[in-house]
Amino acid sequence: MEDFEVIEGNVTSPKGFLASGVFAGIKKAKKDFAMIYSEKKANVAAVFTTNKVKAAPVILDMEKIKNGEAQAIVVNSGNANACTGQKGYEDASSMANMAAKYLNIDISDVLVCSTGVIGVTLPMDKIAKGIELASQRLSKDGGKDAAEAILTTDTFTKEVAVKLNIKGYEVYIGGIAKGSGMISPNMATMLSFITTDADISKKALDKALKETVKRSYNMISVDGDMSTNDTAIMLANGMAGNPTIEEDTHEYEIFYNALLYVNKHLAKQIAKDGEGATKFMEVSVVNAPTEDDAILASKSIVNSNLVKTAIFGEDANWGRIIAALGYSGANFSQDAVDIYLKSNKGIIKVCENGGYVPFSEDKAKEILSEKEISIVVDLNAGKYDALAWGCDLSYDYVKINGSYRT
Amino acid sequence: MEDFEVIEGNVTSPKGFLASGVFAGIKKAKKDFAMIYSEKKANVAAVFTTNKVKAAPVILDMEKIKNGEAQAIVVNSGNANACTGQKGYEDASSMANMAAKYLNIDISDVLVCSTGVIGVTLPMDKIAKGIELASQRLSKDGGKDAAEAILTTDTFTKEVAVKLNIKGYEVYIGGIAKGSGMISPNMATMLSFITTDADISKKALDKALKETVKRSYNMISVDGDMSTNDTAIMLANGMAGNPTIEEDTHEYEIFYNALLYVNKHLAKQIAKDGEGATKFMEVSVVNAPTEDDAILASKSIVNSNLVKTAIFGEDANWGRIIAALGYSGANFSQDAVDIYLKSNKGIIKVCENGGYVPFSEDKAKEILSEKEISIVVDLNAGKYDALAWGCDLSYDYVKINGSYRT
Repeated sequence: MEDFEVIEGNVTSPKGFLASGVFAGIKKAKKDFAMIYSEKKANVAAVFTTNKVKAAPVILDMEKIKNGEAQAIVVNSGNANACTGQKGYEDASSMANMAAKYLNIDISDVLVCSTGVIGVTLPMDKIAKGIELASQRLSKDGGKDAAEAILTTDTFTKEVAVKLNIKGYEVYIGGIAKGSGMISPNMATMLSFITTDADISKKALDKALKETVKRSYNMISVDGDMSTNDTAIMLANGMAGNPTIEEDTHEYEIFYNALLYVNKHLAKQIAKDGEGATKFMEVSVVNAPTEDDAILASKSIVNSNLVKTAIFGEDANWGRIIAALGYSGANFSQDAVDIYLKSNKGIIKVCENGGYVPFSEDKAKEILSEKEISIVVDLNAGKYDALAWGCDLSYDYVKINGSYRT
Repeated sequence: MEDFEVIEGNVTSPKGFLASGVFAGIKKAKKDFAMIYSEKKANVAAVFTTNKVKAAPVILDMEKIKNGEAQAIVVNSGNANACTGQKGYEDASSMANMAAKYLNIDISDVLVCSTGVIGVTLPMDKIAKGIELASQRLSKDGGKDAAEAILTTDTFTKEVAVKLNIKGYEVYIGGIAKGSGMISPNMATMLSFITTDADISKKALDKALKETVKRSYNMISVDGDMSTNDTAIMLANGMAGNPTIEEDTHEYEIFYNALLYVNKHLAKQIAKDGEGATKFMEVSVVNAPTEDDAILASKSIVNSNLVKTAIFGEDANWGRIIAALGYSGANFSQDAVDIYLKSNKGIIKVCENGGYVPFSEDKAKEILSEKEISIVVDLNAGKYDALAWGCDLSYDYVKINGSYRT
């Protein structure tokens, strides 16, 4: 029984948030410029890529969020503004400044994000046009357009919203995100924007975002590569009118659980839409001695090229799973390991006590023929669990990444 | 000017070593059982997989090499004897015991290796047949057969031999190896057997093997997966008659350099024969602040799926290279990084001071059209270098690993 309700919606579901997504000509034909705007200045929290090579907008935003407040996010796709030196930083700044002027808000309250090709400076005339158009088209229905405009090689939009109750006040959380290459544990080429009308303290917001990112975006892998632009930003404008949520309270718990759902949902959508993915894979490591062991183990398995190709080939190759577990760095005893394969077609044990157990190859084939596959690894060594999500490695991954982008 | 000469040969080039490779019926039709034998008891050094899940023969050999001596290595392909529990360990032991009986040597002096499918117990009747045949066919010309019998999905044998001079004595080092999937930095599904007739102390042998493994097999990557069976074993039987080589001497240096060549050569052959590889890739990181930084950086780049698919697609995508450098954990300053692409068709700078530099796309295409590609990353931050080797990620990698093996 959850304390929240999933509703149709996205970043504009919470009170006071408007959004837009437009075509500015950075890409050839598709929408490429998005804006998210709060009618009131909001508390902000953010998590950025841990890559040492950071794109200009990431460097800029890291400065801007220091005061814990923001009011708008402007995003272009088609160009990452990464590895663009001093010029790139100036471009990111002027992108924020232009938007602040159009929106008539403080320069310091505009955050900027970019995603796309690395090493090419932004086409500033097109960026200017994007800002003008996106400012004009901000609306309560604009969340879907924004979700579309931030995509790169993604094949569908990622949107989610939930409604919760905080001390009798109706509160909303909404989000949009994009993948879908260079996705690895620890924030990859992904952008995620979450909004809420909750009144929540800066400290509690920051903690909730960081803790949920650890259990959502940081648990997905498409190809093990981590990008220069990864960013998750959350705005909380307080317009729901609830008493301010502080850390270590019952209300914080309710908020945290709803936010975790939102971020997990978006993370899973990103994994499902991994470049070239034909199957979605969930790796569940249970009964680990610590949460860190469960996390290490599940990430290692979901990230293994050999596991990914086995899933693509519908091959119950548990040897590859236990090998990936073995080099994960997680603490476990081989003799205690059981492995199961699961899908809508059923569940089958493929490894018992770290070794061979007879199972029906036909049943395994049937289970693996589904589009969504679970690998369950029971370490039988404690009480901690972790979930990681990824996708198979297909011919199309090679095709998408092995030829020049158009 | 090297102190050694490369000659045609392999593990039987050094004095007193015999070998054989036979068909025992573990595989469907190809040679699947190899033996390497020294006429005299030899000093032995070995390096094993760091995977927590270790195959039975690895566990057995780790015990057996503790006294620093061995006389024979028996190897089967087609079955890894991994994740086979107590039965697997007993099978590995009885494989050693049978061989000791046929060869009339101490049980403790026989090492065993297995490679192939995980989770299936060894067909001991066929193993027995393999031991019998391989013992009978031991010969001075058998190195090539042994090189063939240890292969799994490899497409060619890996063999090398060198001749060196130690204080006027002619000394030989020879080796054979196999890849070609589950290959990752830190000893992957690879077996490597090196023999020498040098007289070298146990301590010096152990040091030389470990140091050269670090700079050879541990610098290659095919798919980032690390196996349960990786093993490099070196036997030194002293039959060259040279004065014993000790650590920290001029003779040690000569020996070390020759051994490094042997192991690098075999490692590069493994990378060239990576599953589905269409191109060989060398990543050279130069002018790093420490050797560890150079190693981290070069391994991260060679292991990146996005770099590998870019090389497959002949795409001068330096953004992916610098992104992989960024998450490598190596210490460097982005503004100082220069990146070059190199092949027999020439060299081109594709990134300068961490950012865009104009270059001819046509020239880049021409360079990348070759079968052997070098990526040179100059960190301009110190005097340490490292080399890593790998291959591209192709449709065939997915094909080979995405369908049931036959």
